[in-house]
Amino acid sequence: MVKKRQILVIGHNTNGCTPEHEKIAYDVGMEIAKSNSVLICGGLGGVMTAAAHGASDGGGLTIGIIPQNDPSMANEFCDIVIPTGMGLARDFLNALSADGVIIIGGGSGTLSETAAAYMYKKPMVAIRNLGGPVVPFIDGFIDQRENVKIIGVDTAQEAVKKILELITA
Amino acid sequence: MVKKRQILVIGHNTNGCTPEHEKIAYDVGMEIAKSNSVLICGGLGGVMTAAAHGASDGGGLTIGIIPQNDPSMANEFCDIVIPTGMGLARDFLNALSADGVIIIGGGSGTLSETAAAYMYKKPMVAIRNLGGPVVPFIDGFIDQRENVKIIGVDTAQEAVKKILELITA
Amino acid sequence: MVKKRQILVIGHNTNGCTPEHEKIAYDVGMEIAKSNSVLICGGLGGVMTAAAHGASDGGGLTIGIIPQNDPSMANEFCDIVIPTGMGLARDFLNALSADGVIIIGGGSGTLSETAAAYMYKKPMVAIRNLGGPVVPFIDGFIDQRENVKIIGVDTAQEAVKKILELITA
Amino acid sequence: MVKKRQILVIGHNTNGCTPEHEKIAYDVGMEIAKSNSVLICGGLGGVMTAAAHGASDGGGLTIGIIPQNDPSMANEFCDIVIPTGMGLARDFLNALSADGVIIIGGGSGTLSETAAAYMYKKPMVAIRNLGGPVVPFIDGFIDQRENVKIIGVDTAQEAVKKILELITA
Repeated sequence: MVKKRQILVIGHNTNGCTPEHEKIAYDVGMEIAKSNSVLICGGLGGVMTAAAHGASDGGGLTIGIIPQNDPSMANEFCDIVIPTGMGLARDFLNALSADGVIIIGGGSGTLSETAAAYMYKKPMVAIRNLGGPVVPFIDGFIDQRENVKIIGVDTAQEAVKKILELITA
Repeated sequence: MVKKRQILVIGHNTNGCTPEHEKIAYDVGMEIAKSNSVLICGGLGGVMTAAAHGASDGGGLTIGIIPQNDPSMANEFCDIVIPTGMGLARDFLNALSADGVIIIGGGSGTLSETAAAYMYKKPMVAIRNLGGPVVPFIDGFIDQRENVKIIGVDTAQEAVKKILELITA
Repeated sequence: MVKKRQILVIGHNTNGCTPEHEKIAYDVGMEIAKSNSVLICGGLGGVMTAAAHGASDGGGLTIGIIPQNDPSMANEFCDIVIPTGMGLARDFLNALSADGVIIIGGGSGTLSETAAAYMYKKPMVAIRNLGGPVVPFIDGFIDQRENVKIIGVDTAQEAVKKILELITA
Repeated sequence: MVKKRQILVIGHNTNGCTPEHEKIAYDVGMEIAKSNSVLICGGLGGVMTAAAHGASDGGGLTIGIIPQNDPSMANEFCDIVIPTGMGLARDFLNALSADGVIIIGGGSGTLSETAAAYMYKKPMVAIRNLGGPVVPFIDGFIDQRENVKIIGVDTAQEAVKKILELITA
């Protein structure tokens, strides 16, 4: 078995993404690369671009799984593009492709990916105090099944350290 | 154009579904049938079964869109079964098949369907005080895009009346 | 269990569809309605429109499973529209939704649906002498697995009669 | 833009795969790696395993896009696994992920992927004289749309040389 460790980073698309979100996402991407893991992302803007940028600058491999048919819709930091042609239902592919998930703010798309990752019992960490609809679930469970706790952390470095621990455990 | 009005009902699967949820879901299904609309549901247990049961008793048509390949996995009140074979990503098909959505409690699957319906800007109403991860978003928006407000209502009758208004508007 | 019998009709989209194909498809749709079965189709033009037209004129129920997000892309004879938003991969949903399949000519999309139905071991009949890439497989198997034989027939009436036999068997 | 060249190899799963198919698939994988392209495959047995083995031995990167939820179902030569959870409809993701496609024999699954790649107008080459349902379409078109010709070749080396030409053109 040669499969590499695959870490999904999710969060704001261009809409709603602040420089703070981008900085954290870039740092998360860089740390993922340093840990010799592969970055999986949704391949589009905002947090997805920033995380792929960071991973790329860190010498890591980046995968973008996008809603469209056309690979050129992916951001310029994706080494590999999976153009699903299945619209936003690709959120489930992102979740399924993850050995672990890092959540950086985000809107309804991030909420969809978080729900998918929860249903498929993927380890998740979320950076606190970044807003968005995932906030009510940080440091808790999405529902009474208690599939997997979304662990809150405070920094990019802590996020990657924690997700690596959870994946290894 | 002969397309019928299609109303999606989502909520608890067997896990977590109480007699109260089932009663409301049955009544919602019945009201949908009376309004000459088609019930769409996820085809499995709990709220899905109860809503299909109610719609069926009301003489309405019921569609179950299920995660599995095998149509016999659907509950016994589905007239038509769409076995998607695509696992829980079928949540997006449920949302896309809706002219409007009624939310009755629910867990992570319901949250996933709600996020999908929000992204595709489907009218939504949710019955209040039934618990679950959709609660923080009732009478508000999921994110700053303000795609569509999730309208809170208090009864099965009000839910169907309101969704019909929203679909017609 | 109230599930109705669901028969999928596949064949030429607008491109390549002749009046002969349309006539046969209309008659197949009419016979499906008369047999009290539900017509499933891809919801778009050519054979899909003609079959839905026939089923609708026969008083039957028609379902269109379309590649797009927008239900208004379906032809005007679909009572129920499932807008999958997953592009041409919806061919697999068509196949999975079938208790049996009737093939009327067709191009690459029909070939894709035929391959999907074969892999999921759905009964299939094909009307002979209508051209298209399915021709090499009529009255035979697609591969050495011999999952299901594609039974050749010569008329619309024979096609529906035969598929009903195969579904019941 | 850093996206790498992505070449999809399709053909027999374990069922029906001969040592000849495996030898060719291994050589194709090796040539893909030498050309500094990424191998995409369906991640399972037969031609998929052999091609990934060859690419891996050649020092190349390999991606397996599998039908299941569980990444451990992929063969042991996949560096990256995309577990789609969508069953055989993942054939469309394989096709969409390709800049070009090499066909090595195959059965109904390969036919499905070939039809998908044709509809999405992907360059394709097929090695001749290996049997299977794609044979009637080699050195020709699948239908009257003439989207893309499936170019016949005779060796692994020729297949990779030709697909690189077609992708670059």
